[in-house]
Amino acid sequence: METFPNPKPGRAFTITHVNPEFTSVCPITGMPDFATVTVEYIPNEVCIELKSLKYYYFEFRQKGIFYEAVTNQILDDLVAACKPIRMKVTTAWTPRGGIHSVIVAEHVA
Amino acid sequence: METFPNPKPGRAFTITHVNPEFTSVCPITGMPDFATVTVEYIPNEVCIELKSLKYYYFEFRQKGIFYEAVTNQILDDLVAACKPIRMKVTTAWTPRGGIHSVIVAEHVA
Amino acid sequence: METFPNPKPGRAFTITHVNPEFTSVCPITGMPDFATVTVEYIPNEVCIELKSLKYYYFEFRQKGIFYEAVTNQILDDLVAACKPIRMKVTTAWTPRGGIHSVIVAEHVA
Amino acid sequence: METFPNPKPGRAFTITHVNPEFTSVCPITGMPDFATVTVEYIPNEVCIELKSLKYYYFEFRQKGIFYEAVTNQILDDLVAACKPIRMKVTTAWTPRGGIHSVIVAEHVA
Amino acid sequence: METFPNPKPGRAFTITHVNPEFTSVCPITGMPDFATVTVEYIPNEVCIELKSLKYYYFEFRQKGIFYEAVTNQILDDLVAACKPIRMKVTTAWTPRGGIHSVIVAEHVA
Amino acid sequence: METFPNPKPGRAFTITHVNPEFTSVCPITGMPDFATVTVEYIPNEVCIELKSLKYYYFEFRQKGIFYEAVTNQILDDLVAACKPIRMKVTTAWTPRGGIHSVIVAEHVA
Amino acid sequence: METFPNPKPGRAFTITHVNPEFTSVCPITGMPDFATVTVEYIPNEVCIELKSLKYYYFEFRQKGIFYEAVTNQILDDLVAACKPIRMKVTTAWTPRGGIHSVIVAEHVA
Amino acid sequence: METFPNPKPGRAFTITHVNPEFTSVCPITGMPDFATVTVEYIPNEVCIELKSLKYYYFEFRQKGIFYEAVTNQILDDLVAACKPIRMKVTTAWTPRGGIHSVIVAEHVA
Amino acid sequence: METFPNPKPGRAFTITHVNPEFTSVCPITGMPDFATVTVEYIPNEVCIELKSLKYYYFEFRQKGIFYEAVTNQILDDLVAACKPIRMKVTTAWTPRGGIHSVIVAEHVA
Amino acid sequence: METFPNPKPGRAFTITHVNPEFTSVCPITGMPDFATVTVEYIPNEVCIELKSLKYYYFEFRQKGIFYEAVTNQILDDLVAACKPIRMKVTTAWTPRGGIHSVIVAEHVA
Repeated sequence: METFPNPKPGRAFTITHVNPEFTSVCPITGMPDFATVTVEYIPNEVCIELKSLKYYYFEFRQKGIFYEAVTNQILDDLVAACKPIRMKVTTAWTPRGGIHSVIVAEHVA
Repeated sequence: METFPNPKPGRAFTITHVNPEFTSVCPITGMPDFATVTVEYIPNEVCIELKSLKYYYFEFRQKGIFYEAVTNQILDDLVAACKPIRMKVTTAWTPRGGIHSVIVAEHVA
Repeated sequence: METFPNPKPGRAFTITHVNPEFTSVCPITGMPDFATVTVEYIPNEVCIELKSLKYYYFEFRQKGIFYEAVTNQILDDLVAACKPIRMKVTTAWTPRGGIHSVIVAEHVA
Repeated sequence: METFPNPKPGRAFTITHVNPEFTSVCPITGMPDFATVTVEYIPNEVCIELKSLKYYYFEFRQKGIFYEAVTNQILDDLVAACKPIRMKVTTAWTPRGGIHSVIVAEHVA
Repeated sequence: METFPNPKPGRAFTITHVNPEFTSVCPITGMPDFATVTVEYIPNEVCIELKSLKYYYFEFRQKGIFYEAVTNQILDDLVAACKPIRMKVTTAWTPRGGIHSVIVAEHVA
Repeated sequence: METFPNPKPGRAFTITHVNPEFTSVCPITGMPDFATVTVEYIPNEVCIELKSLKYYYFEFRQKGIFYEAVTNQILDDLVAACKPIRMKVTTAWTPRGGIHSVIVAEHVA
Repeated sequence: METFPNPKPGRAFTITHVNPEFTSVCPITGMPDFATVTVEYIPNEVCIELKSLKYYYFEFRQKGIFYEAVTNQILDDLVAACKPIRMKVTTAWTPRGGIHSVIVAEHVA
Repeated sequence: METFPNPKPGRAFTITHVNPEFTSVCPITGMPDFATVTVEYIPNEVCIELKSLKYYYFEFRQKGIFYEAVTNQILDDLVAACKPIRMKVTTAWTPRGGIHSVIVAEHVA
Repeated sequence: METFPNPKPGRAFTITHVNPEFTSVCPITGMPDFATVTVEYIPNEVCIELKSLKYYYFEFRQKGIFYEAVTNQILDDLVAACKPIRMKVTTAWTPRGGIHSVIVAEHVA
Repeated sequence: METFPNPKPGRAFTITHVNPEFTSVCPITGMPDFATVTVEYIPNEVCIELKSLKYYYFEFRQKGIFYEAVTNQILDDLVAACKPIRMKVTTAWTPRGGIHSVIVAEHVA
């Protein structure tokens, strides 16, 4: 995950990146899952570079993982990469068996 | 109701499952009622398994029960099954006699 | 107004009934007014029975009454009927003379 | 029903009046029905005056009549009143028993 | 299926009944399917009575049947019941495995 | 009304100008009426200049005129100004007395 | 501005009047501006009469005035007329030069 | 691709399957593309089985292929599989470089 | 403008590219205009390459040109580049002076 | 940036200007970016003049700058120009690589 210096370090501003094109694989059935992944954070010293974020998401394309686990892993990975003041990750999944799910996890430094 | 271990027990994250395909039976007329049932909770030690949640809802398909009662029963059953830190159940019903109803019940551990 | 016993008296849950088919009469012009009436309440010992609520609204069909008065009267009548922990009545009226109005009144026990 | 002279008799133009505030009474249950009534016509010698159309609709407020009958009656009455080149009446009813209905009738001179 | 006499037999008008609360059972999994069923027809001598249409749909609640079969069966049953000039049945199903389906069948006398 | 030469005289292309900010005055009550006016035409030798169209609409601001008359007058005025191959004028009015109206008039050269 | 007595003086209820048909004139260009004006207030001893509110808005139709000034003037005029417990005026303007503006002013007694 | 016998061979009815979860790979960049794929057809002797359609789409998940090619290939493959009376395939792609594309291909027997 | 060979030359299929990010300059005021440009065509021997289409649009960013002229020029340029069986170009512009415009031009080989 | 005197200096009211037509250039690819820029502020002694705000935005049309930097620069420039009590700038960008971003920065005097 690449980062770049925060252009306004003294101001607590908010950055949101919405990706409606996230896909991973259900670890039980082996069939694909689809979600909109939203990352909202207040940067500290560095910001997340958008293209490397896209490549990071791409790594889940063939990975078998549950909704709750993928949400927390994205949060952990991105917090480790940019050490933000705070960060919230939301995953909103398309319906399976008629039920659609939303998972929200938050980190505060 | 099956459960699985919370993949991130130390973090108070939120899980929401929305089911727009809930149906029960009106205890007075014997005709079907339809609702969207939303369960939102912060897991403690275990999470609700999605497929068993679907089968749980299926048990109401032939059951005669009022709006207010079914909302509180779902909350009681799911709290008993996964002992969450907090849980909220919302049922939003299609109109009967021109009136549509929404019931919201919440449990805090 | 008929009521039935609260199925979960120990829990402060919320019931909302939305009626988009309310109509009364303008006391000045004698022409009909149309509103969506929303009642949201936390029940105490009893809940409002849905069919009798529908019949109660029906009584306004030929009644000449102002927006502000009808909103407060519905709140007073329903509070008297079910003595809730709290109740809010919202009436949202279709436009007259290009202006549409919303009235909100609330009662706390 | 009042009318006024067509301001452009030589041109076949179209007039549409949409009334989302129509209400009549179900002849079986005695409870109110609600519909959006749309009248679309090409005038011949006269146009329908808007205020008298409103008063005409008002006459159905206490009248017990089925969906199919009210649609055809409005068409018959308005055709008789303004003798248009063609006219179409659409009634779109709010749901009863979960089913909502639309009736469309057309007259060509 | 009950019917009532067409109130305007000489005019080819259209009746549409939309039911967003249809449910049947998947013959393979035994789990419920949900659809919006729309019936649009030009009546001949009789019209379909709305309440008996509702009871007719209710018969599918526990029945295992495929999308394509249920659509054609509804069309066949309703054509037999009211012998319309023409009739179209549309079933629009909620997603299964991420795919949602629409089936349209039409009968012309 | 100013015009400018059609930039592609040999091709029958379509130009549409939508003005949601039209207002005139009701000739009976003296109160303002509001409409969205849409002009759609195939130009012949000249096109309508947009700013002079705006000034043209401005002339109706204090003018008492009925829906049907204003629609036909706009069509007549614009046809006279640019002599198009064909032109259609649609006026869609905000509700008065709960009824909203749409008038459509068309000219073919 | 006419008023009428508050029908429920002891209860702090809220009245909102939304007028999507407000128009004034730009003091620089002389061309019309269009806005939706929303007045939300808690009445004290009197309520604003709806028809006189409509006539009040009509006075701005030929008046050259800036967005910020008109918002504050409406608030001042209506506060003077009905001396409410609190009042908020919102004006939402259609785009000019691609930019649309919203002004919100509030008065607390 | 599995099929099953057409339940109503004598009637030309229409089947539509909408899949908003299609994903393939851009053959130039190697990055994923996302589309909603809609198949609409009139069956002849057999219908497409829904689960095998889902598995068929899954084969494109790692395949590098252009928009125009994938649309025509799906049409060719499905026509070969079920020999329909007619079939139309539509692919609607999420934006790339600010441009989103839709491809429609049709086969008539 | 780059092109690539039509992958299915024998079939008359349709390709649509929607670009909501088009901007040119008003030749009178020098201020920017914004439009959604939609190109819909049936390819003959070659298809338009998406990236070069994007670069083509980019050339209008600093160019002073009227709505009607830009629409016809895009159509002429793209027809020259790919010689399609037919092509339609639609430009839908954001409002200027309260009026928004749509221009549609079509070429048939 | 031109300003004009606050017409109601003693009242803390809010002004919002929404510009859906902002465009700058990506400093890496040289290709255009598009955003809706919203400025919301409580004026102190002066207000921002709308036309000069439009010209200010126009300066970014050929400028290579990142999302995070442009948001903070607009906030800094506008705060310097009008010294508001508080101001918030939001930039919402169209998707790039499937991801759309929103940046929010706020200044409190």
